[in-house]
Amino acid sequence: MLNIRRLSANAAGFREELDQLLAWETVSNQSVNDIVNEVCARVRQEGDAALLEYTAKFDRLELKSGAELEISKDRLQQALQNIPAAQREALEISAQRVRDYHERQVQDSWTYEEADGTMLGQQVTPLDSVGLYVPGGKAAYPSSVIMNAIPAKVAGVEKLIMVVPTPDGEVNEMVLAAAAICEVDAVFTLGGAQAVAALAYGTETVPAVDKIVGPGNIFVATAKRLVFGTVGIDMIAGPSEILVYCDGKTNPDWIAVDLFSQAEHDEDAQAILVTQDADFAAQVYDSMNKLLPTMPRKEIIQKALDDRGAIIVVDNEDQAIEMINIIAPEHLELSVDDPKALLPKIRHAGAIFMGRYTAEALGDYCAGPNHVLPTSRTARFSSPLGVYDFQKRSSLIMVSEDGANTLGKIAGELADGEGLQAHAASARYRVKD
Amino acid sequence: MLNIRRLSANAAGFREELDQLLAWETVSNQSVNDIVNEVCARVRQEGDAALLEYTAKFDRLELKSGAELEISKDRLQQALQNIPAAQREALEISAQRVRDYHERQVQDSWTYEEADGTMLGQQVTPLDSVGLYVPGGKAAYPSSVIMNAIPAKVAGVEKLIMVVPTPDGEVNEMVLAAAAICEVDAVFTLGGAQAVAALAYGTETVPAVDKIVGPGNIFVATAKRLVFGTVGIDMIAGPSEILVYCDGKTNPDWIAVDLFSQAEHDEDAQAILVTQDADFAAQVYDSMNKLLPTMPRKEIIQKALDDRGAIIVVDNEDQAIEMINIIAPEHLELSVDDPKALLPKIRHAGAIFMGRYTAEALGDYCAGPNHVLPTSRTARFSSPLGVYDFQKRSSLIMVSEDGANTLGKIAGELADGEGLQAHAASARYRVKD
Repeated sequence: MLNIRRLSANAAGFREELDQLLAWETVSNQSVNDIVNEVCARVRQEGDAALLEYTAKFDRLELKSGAELEISKDRLQQALQNIPAAQREALEISAQRVRDYHERQVQDSWTYEEADGTMLGQQVTPLDSVGLYVPGGKAAYPSSVIMNAIPAKVAGVEKLIMVVPTPDGEVNEMVLAAAAICEVDAVFTLGGAQAVAALAYGTETVPAVDKIVGPGNIFVATAKRLVFGTVGIDMIAGPSEILVYCDGKTNPDWIAVDLFSQAEHDEDAQAILVTQDADFAAQVYDSMNKLLPTMPRKEIIQKALDDRGAIIVVDNEDQAIEMINIIAPEHLELSVDDPKALLPKIRHAGAIFMGRYTAEALGDYCAGPNHVLPTSRTARFSSPLGVYDFQKRSSLIMVSEDGANTLGKIAGELADGEGLQAHAASARYRVKD
Repeated sequence: MLNIRRLSANAAGFREELDQLLAWETVSNQSVNDIVNEVCARVRQEGDAALLEYTAKFDRLELKSGAELEISKDRLQQALQNIPAAQREALEISAQRVRDYHERQVQDSWTYEEADGTMLGQQVTPLDSVGLYVPGGKAAYPSSVIMNAIPAKVAGVEKLIMVVPTPDGEVNEMVLAAAAICEVDAVFTLGGAQAVAALAYGTETVPAVDKIVGPGNIFVATAKRLVFGTVGIDMIAGPSEILVYCDGKTNPDWIAVDLFSQAEHDEDAQAILVTQDADFAAQVYDSMNKLLPTMPRKEIIQKALDDRGAIIVVDNEDQAIEMINIIAPEHLELSVDDPKALLPKIRHAGAIFMGRYTAEALGDYCAGPNHVLPTSRTARFSSPLGVYDFQKRSSLIMVSEDGANTLGKIAGELADGEGLQAHAASARYRVKD
């Protein structure tokens, strides 16, 4: 029997309970920090030698030389042959749909000219090189390769380097096949903090990159925080979450399994149902209890739902929207008749799944939009992974002789006000009159 | 006499010397970390009481209540009256030009529909609230208020909260006047880690915001790193830098003072000249020695140039471009005949100042583009501050009944491959045939 929280938004103490439910802080304890500091420092100083040592120690994989760290292009192509045809086709369709969607995110350079001939604008360029971390073991997801690699490729990144640990030599064929489909430029069998350090600092074998993306455990996340500044990083993700808002008219079994699909990720995952229909809330609860035993990952689902899940009954749609904007969910499912009508009121959500047919799982794999999304209320200030994360901008300023005459006086005045007289002099050298 | 490095790009050991010259890591030592941890924890728990205590301690400013932390709108308007008319006009023109430029960065929501009726897109929305840190004391710059506040306002941020310390009660009238011109929504006399903590967690008086931007000292930077995740932050900036590339045909005095204008920021600032004309390099060196005594901030300029500056002679334009892309400068001045021709080869730079009339100082104050730029080679992966930093995106996915039939099968196949059976079930509920 599920022991998921069943709450009323009008009950006393509801807001405090909700805040507690949403609270999440990824804290690296001192021992994790110490290990990561040492691993990164040694990889930075010793290069391949440290990588081989750590790979032997943490992944129980004995390699003789740096060269053996690379998984060859031939091996990636072989993986593409090894997997069932239906899987390969599904991966290819997914990659193509993700590509189609992300091509619409490409940003172009722009300039404009002012009356005095001064030209202003921005030059948009791809990053030179990107490292993609892919976890090994139980959370090895080919969809994650597609979602991280395709936007980088669409942006025009020329060197996309993937690292994926193969603990005890165990290789995930689907992950390698996805790397082949996405035309990743090189793959290394590396994981943990040592993989992040190799990508940040470079070794004899692994090239240094400009940005590191992709999910990982606490060691990977801590290492990413450490090397941030030397390279760019994506967001440090918290546990995955969904908020399903339903008007009560969707099949409760569908909603129950939508919630399960989030909860099955791991025991910290969060699934919340918000509805104004108390009867429907009870039906979904019954469906969950009925369907839970049929789920292979039922232990994880139950623990996630009991610890961090909730069914929240609200008064009406307005209160539901208020709830959504407070929670700022990573995934928001609007299982209602007219989801488009709600969009203008939704201020914070990583991805919005609209209508009764849009299961979140479709977005995870193949709808097109990215499945790397802001978690833990960070949708208040951040966005899905996209092509824009692999492009950068340079301001363009070309001031004409006349422009310098005008702007030089203004800049001189302000520089004087700030006590920066060399700035003032530099501006005034270009003033004619 | 200046003791700036004079290097040849072809000399033995040049690349090692360059790497050393460019090396910069902002490291917060343990004592800074300890202070910041305590300050943030206490502000989070005790709110205004902790703010008043720290403001008395660090800014030597005794306030009786949280309400006294706020600098009123009337006081901001009064500052606008207090400053000289020429300054006010310069600030107003600067704000208007920055607004005009940044309006071109606004991104709009977009959607598209597929043949089966499935709708995909992105909804773009402004952040609800932003905190702007403005340093007090010697580095109190009204231009910084304009450069941080205007993009947020153009993005549509409704609550823009500024904090600025007034150590010993000393108020910078120009900073307050700039806040009035930018229509900042509230200003608090707060600085240091306590200001960052107040903006991140909120107190009785200071509202919590969604993102914190703006420059600050090591305590501010360390606090921003600490609260990152609870709120968004902008880049942690290193010392400011310029690379001037000149073909040898610009007045050497102009170039000398352009380099000074960077060096005068602080002793860690970096100014580098790259030229293929060895005679010109010598002329600029002579100009620098001639003009240095005329500069009010000559001690700072000399220390910055001696410690971190360089004049680099290269063989030709191609080698100059290579140098630019290695250094990835915050500010790049292309003091040449045809700077537009070089643009396609420049891969990394925060802002590009093109032609002999575009002194970097014009961009600092009033050209239009932002002066908050990526430092310390981070232009390899990051961009000038812009409207895009104050907007966020939500993916939109509305799958039609037919679309769910097609996509449900693909998602089911991939979910099975990843061992996520609830995902598969959720997708397959929507498959008809």
